Order: sequence, then C-alpha cells, then structure tokens
Amino acid sequence: MNILVLNAGSSSLKYQVIEMPSQHVKCVGLVERIGMEDAIFNHEINDEKHKEILPILNHEIGLQKIAKTLLDKKIGVLNSVDEIKAVGHRVVHGGSKFSKTVVVTQEVKDNIRDLFDLAPLHNPANLTGIEIAETIFTSAKQIAIFDTSFHQTMPKEAYQYAIPNKYLSTHKIRAYGFHGTSHKYVSEKAIEYLGEEKSKNIITIHLGNGCSMSAIKNGKSIENSLGFGPMNGLIMGTRSGDIDQSVIFFLMKKLNKSVEEVNNLLQKESGMQGLTGFSDLREISEKSAQGNQDCKNALNLAGYRIRKYIGSYAAILNGLDAIVFTAGIGENSAIMRQLACENLDFLGIDLDETKNEIRSKDIREIQKSISKVKILIIPTNEEIEIAKQSYQLIK
Amino acid sequence: MNILVLNAGSSSLKYQVIEMPSQHVKCVGLVERIGMEDAIFNHEINDEKHKEILPILNHEIGLQKIAKTLLDKKIGVLNSVDEIKAVGHRVVHGGSKFSKTVVVTQEVKDNIRDLFDLAPLHNPANLTGIEIAETIFTSAKQIAIFDTSFHQTMPKEAYQYAIPNKYLSTHKIRAYGFHGTSHKYVSEKAIEYLGEEKSKNIITIHLGNGCSMSAIKNGKSIENSLGFGPMNGLIMGTRSGDIDQSVIFFLMKKLNKSVEEVNNLLQKESGMQGLTGFSDLREISEKSAQGNQDCKNALNLAGYRIRKYIGSYAAILNGLDAIVFTAGIGENSAIMRQLACENLDFLGIDLDETKNEIRSKDIREIQKSISKVKILIIPTNEEIEIAKQSYQLIK
Ligand SMILES: Nc1ncnc2c1ncn2[C@@H]1O[C@H](COP(=O)(O)OP(=O)(O)O)[C@@H](O)[C@H]1O
Ligand SMILES: Nc1ncnc2c1ncn2[C@@H]1O[C@H](COP(=O)(O)OP(=O)(O)O)[C@@H](O)[C@H]1O
Repeated sequence: MNILVLNAGSSSLKYQVIEMPSQHVKCVGLVERIGMEDAIFNHEINDEKHKEILPILNHEIGLQKIAKTLLDKKIGVLNSVDEIKAVGHRVVHGGSKFSKTVVVTQEVKDNIRDLFDLAPLHNPANLTGIEIAETIFTSAKQIAIFDTSFHQTMPKEAYQYAIPNKYLSTHKIRAYGFHGTSHKYVSEKAIEYLGEEKSKNIITIHLGNGCSMSAIKNGKSIENSLGFGPMNGLIMGTRSGDIDQSVIFFLMKKLNKSVEEVNNLLQKESGMQGLTGFSDLREISEKSAQGNQDCKNALNLAGYRIRKYIGSYAAILNGLDAIVFTAGIGENSAIMRQLACENLDFLGIDLDETKNEIRSKDIREIQKSISKVKILIIPTNEEIEIAKQSYQLIK
Repeated sequence: MNILVLNAGSSSLKYQVIEMPSQHVKCVGLVERIGMEDAIFNHEINDEKHKEILPILNHEIGLQKIAKTLLDKKIGVLNSVDEIKAVGHRVVHGGSKFSKTVVVTQEVKDNIRDLFDLAPLHNPANLTGIEIAETIFTSAKQIAIFDTSFHQTMPKEAYQYAIPNKYLSTHKIRAYGFHGTSHKYVSEKAIEYLGEEKSKNIITIHLGNGCSMSAIKNGKSIENSLGFGPMNGLIMGTRSGDIDQSVIFFLMKKLNKSVEEVNNLLQKESGMQGLTGFSDLREISEKSAQGNQDCKNALNLAGYRIRKYIGSYAAILNGLDAIVFTAGIGENSAIMRQLACENLDFLGIDLDETKNEIRSKDIREIQKSISKVKILIIPTNEEIEIAKQSYQLIK
C-alpha cells in the first residue's frame, strides 16, 4: 500500500511516498519558497535528484506539481493518484483533543482550526495541506498525525502551570510538548532494541533545529521540555530555551522593547545564534575547536542545560535505563553528546569517548561497559512513523 | 558587642539587637505601614510584647522611634546609641559587584543605587535604611549583607541565559539567585552537623513565602532556582515559578493583557493562590486533608516541581549527600516535605514518615536508616547570619 506523507509548512511542502508495511521509501521531495516566482522544486528517486526553479504561487499549485511528478513516466512512482491509499499529514498542534492519530473528518478539521491561536505558524499551513490533498487524492484517506499527541499521557503535575485555574480550563494554557512523532519513534525503537524489562525508564533527547527532551515511562511520555509553545527548555539554534520570566518584563519595561520584539529576540536571535553569532552546530563546533571562546561557552551552556534535564527526568522517572540521542545534532555531534553526558556517573551515565566518535547510520550504544545506563544513538524518522501510524489506522 | 540587624522594606522596618559573639538576641521588633497615620510599632523583649499604633510618616521617623525605644529605661536594651557597634543591613540585590559582605562606603551606596532597576521593590528601601542609620547610629559601622552574594560562586553555565551576549555584558541580565543569607546559614549548619566529608554535595530547600533551592558544592553555591528576579523556579505562595515564556506572549497578544497585568498576574495572583484561592500553606494543607481537590492538586504540583529540581541539582552536583529543608514551610510542613521526597529512592532519598511528623525547633534528621541521602530540617535564621557576618567583618 502506498502512503503519501505530507508536511505542509507556511511556504513549503515536504513529501515522501512510502510503501507499507515494507517501509520502502519510493521517493522524497520538497517544494520551497511557495508564493514566489522562483520557487524551488526538489524530487529524489533512486538517489537521483531532480531540481526545478518555477513559479509556485500557492500550496494548491505546489501539491498539483507534486501529484503530476508522482505520475511522471520517468521520475514518477504511480500510474494513477488512486494508488495513494492514504495521505498522512503532519499536524503540529493537536491540543488536548487528540491523544492519537485520526482519520480526518469535518470535526477534526474544525478542531485543528480551533487551535490556530496555539500554533499560529503551523496549524494553518497544516490544515491547508489537508484541504488541498482532499481535492487531489480523492480516493485516499486523509490522516492527521499530531506532534503533541504522544505527550497527552503527561500527568497533570507535568502539564499544569501554577497560574489561576481558569487559564487551563478556559484558555487551554498548559504544557503540550512537541516533537512527539520523533520521541515516539525513537523510544519505540529503543524499547524494541533493549527489551521491555530494560527500558522502563528512558530519556529521549531530540536535538535538531528545535530541541526537546522527553521522559518515557513504560513507553509513555510523562514529560517534555517544550511546553505551551516551541521555545522553552533546551538551548536551540536561535531559541533561548528556559529563561526567567523577569527578563521579559525587564526588556519591556526598562529597555522599552515591544512584545513582538521580545518574542522575536527569544525565538530568532537567541540560543546558539545569540551566544555565538552562528546557529549551525557544525560551524559552532569547528570554531570552538579553533579556540573561539563564545562558541566554547555556548556548547558548555547547551550541554549543561541538557544535564539538568537528564537529572530532573531521572528523578521524575525514579530510575534510568537508557538515554537516547536523536535528530541532526543528536545523531551527528559527538561533542554535544559528550557535554550532555559529562560528570553524570552519579546517575550511572558513563560515556565511552571512542565509541562516541564512531559515525554510522545504525542504532548504536556508546556507553562504557561499566555504565549502568545505556547511551544510545537512534536515527529518527518522522516520515516512517507517520506512514506506520497511517497504515495501522486504515489497514 | 551589640549589633543592630536592620531589614528595611518599602513600608516596614524589621530589627533585632544581637549580642555577638554570644548570638544572644536582646530584642526584636517591626514597624509596619510606614507612611500612614495608623502605622504599627511592635517591640519584644524577654518574651514581653509591646504594640503601639501611631503616625509614622517616613522611614526616618520609624528608625528614630526604634532608636528611642532601644534607649527606653523599661523596654530598652541600651544606655546610649553608641553601644551599637555595627548596623547590619539586609540588601536584596548586590549584582555582580558584591560577592561578600562589605562595610558601607560612598562607593557601596552608589553601587546599591546602580542596581535599583534590578530590584525596584527592595534596593531603594534598603538604601534608605542605610542612609538614615548613618545619621542616627553615628558611631556604628554600617554593613551591607546581600541576598545575592552567596550565589556569586555560580559558574557561567548556571548564570548565563541563552540570549545575545550584550544583554549580559551591557545590561547585566543573568541569574543572580536570592535567599543567599538563608542558604548560606543552613548549608553551613549542615556542614558543621554532618562533617565536611559527608556534606560535599548538598541541596538546600528554602520554602517560605518566597521559595528557592540551591545546589551547594563543598560549601559553595553553584545553582539557585531564583534567577534574574524573584519569580521563577519553585511554585510559591502567589508567584508562579517556572513558566513557559510563550504563555506570557499569548496572554499579551491573544488576551490583550498589558505587561503590568501579566507581571502582576504571575507575581501576585499565581502560585498556590492561583491554584487554590489561598496562599497560606497551613490553610491549603487543611483544606486538602478535608478533600478540597484544588488544594490537593496544588500540593502535588508544588512537590513535583521540587522533585524536578532535586534531580536537576543532583545531576549538576554529580552526587548527593544531604537535602536540607528550611523556612516557614520547610521547617513546619510535613506534607510538603513528604511530597518533595516522594518516589526518589533512585537518588537515595528515603523519607521516614514518622520522623517527618515530629515537631521541634532543633536540627533533625528525618530519613530512614536505609536512606543514602540525609534529609535534614534546619531552622533558618537570617538575622543571626547577618549579625555573624557583620561581627566577623569588624571584630
Ligand atoms: N555532522 C554534524 N555535526 C553537528 N551538527 C550537525 C551535523 N549534521 C547536522 N547537524 C545539525 O543538525 C541541526 C539540524 O537538525 P535536524 O534534525 O535536521 O533539524 P530539524 O529540527 O529541522 O528536523 C543543525 O543545527 C545542524 O547543524
Ligand atoms: N505549621 C505550618 N505548616 C505549614 N506551613 C506553615 C506553618 N507555619 C508557617 N507556614 C508557612 O510558612 C510560610 C511563611 O514562611 P516564612 O519563612 O516565614 O516566610 P518569609 O519568606 O516571609 O520569611 C507561609 O506560607 C506559612 O503558611
């Protein structure tokens, strides 16, 4: 069965056609700069890359271009759009309504729309993707997979903030957690790999452009370091992560910044970018190795923040079997993993520095033999997870 | 040697006369509602309480009233103001300038003034207290004891936020930590009690109207849960503690609240107050025992937050010898201590519930015999600490 996995952003469409249950990826692609005369269309099949610059003025034209390409005799993978049995849509915010993946109905769409205020940059684009896919892949089931749903198992102590109760009941202000598809994928891989008995208490550490950590108890998420929005917790490429709220009031009241300016500062000019002038961790690691003090300092700060969360989650789990690194930085940056594991032998965490340096695309263990806690690297794959969940729902 | 300990608030003056080095408290008192026609003056000597309602229109008149009372034949303790050899002033914010207690000079006063922006509610009143005391206790040394100075040993990873560097260098935006005098006092008591070898890694938990925790490594503070201002970290009587900054932006942008309203909400209407309608923990514990669900929930949230910090600090310390409870709630609330220690045996923390219920004013241990970590209750005494530090500086 062919499943089209679709991730619609505000000016982009990412897609893959995945055959299930084999998990064979038939093609992958990306439309960027939607709305422009010089939009970019990328399509890859059998390691062959196709690139086109062309006007793509809206998402509908973008998805039509994708559908046409999928039917192309040379670089396509389908004879008819009806061969797509399901379109699996990534939806960032599912609020408290969606604790699992669902088939899209009018009610589901209304609920996604009701959450626009909570995810103003993502949910509108995600809904647009669904609505257009319904008109093109008419015989396919449309499926919504939410970034938040894996975290709906969090207990109240983890999701409620200490503000008047009405903000929770009326305005739904609470921690939701994000990157759920990735945390679910890698935690399930870890449990499969270690066996259930040896994976009761896991911490998953997703370090990409966005970063978050989850505490996973018996396969269920009980904590995530991203809360109500996508900015607190760990230090990210351009986002500050945790910061004392007094700083926000100071910036507004004493330095006369507007709410927009402060929001922008904390989301786009902070994190590694604010500390070093660079947001890409490759560049920062290189510069640090060459002696750049700001870069060295920023790496220290980022590693320290992760260590604090490891401790905090180990306490809440009351035990620790394994920690799992994933995503761009987690899978590739030996230095960040090293800083994240430094001086934690009290918790049973002992990194093997040699194993940590070995590069590979496979699941691997990088702890010393004396380490009570397993330290794993597990490449994440949100698209496969979306295809899996879509398949399970309709098979 | 007589030391006058003075804590000047915006509309109050708290004082004690303490004889050093014996630490004998000769009298204690409090002027409240300064600025009013019906201000309240309280003075206590030999367990006898004196109360007067009278107009006290400013701090100068208030301190004159105190000085006059100290000289009173019946309820006084001095024959001449010159018998006060030092006035130890509590100053809330010492910024990055003061890593220890100092004798007040013009430069010190200028520095306290430079920090008005960082502690607008406290430093102006603290400076007023110093300036008036200089005119009344003319032959005494004026000493400034800062709430922040004990935390000046925090490493950069603990105090720097992940925002552009200029906010640290130019605007001094960083974590300072507070309640330093209390954390110093109880951690020193703990080290004295346990011996240095068995107190390398301590977590001190100050739970009063304001709440904060510190990680103490070999007697030095390396972390405090209050940062740039007095509102993040633990859940307090009316303050939210940690909250995702996205919530602030949501309240301002979607619910059209002003910066003042949000600041007020998070400082005065949140925390236990926001969750239950009550801010006094005695009332909340009673109501919870009677079945009030909001109160039960709030206690759970507060305990859970403390547990997360215990884990986080144990990780950063990479070890844990003891945790110390102090201040109004820490010393008196068995239920809060129990919730704070629940399900933490992975970290070696095992509370003895019977010992936990015993009331006493002494230092005591409340862990089970199997507990690797000592759990101590140590009554705090910021006035004695201020007297001690003042005495050490001038003896
Ligand atoms: N070899 C590498 N070493 C260090 N960092 C890397 C490496 N490869 C990728 N990264 C980092 O991964 C991040 C992107 O991660 P990714 O998971 O692709 O992000 P996204 O959150 O957008 O899915 C970038 O900050 C990049 O610097
Ligand atoms: N017996 C008690 N049980 C529970 N809480 C108590 C008890 N006694 C005092 N408290 C709490 O202690 C808090 C005040 O602590 P304190 O250390 O005096 O505050 P401050 O921060 O003003 O110095 C109040 O919330 C009060 O409810």
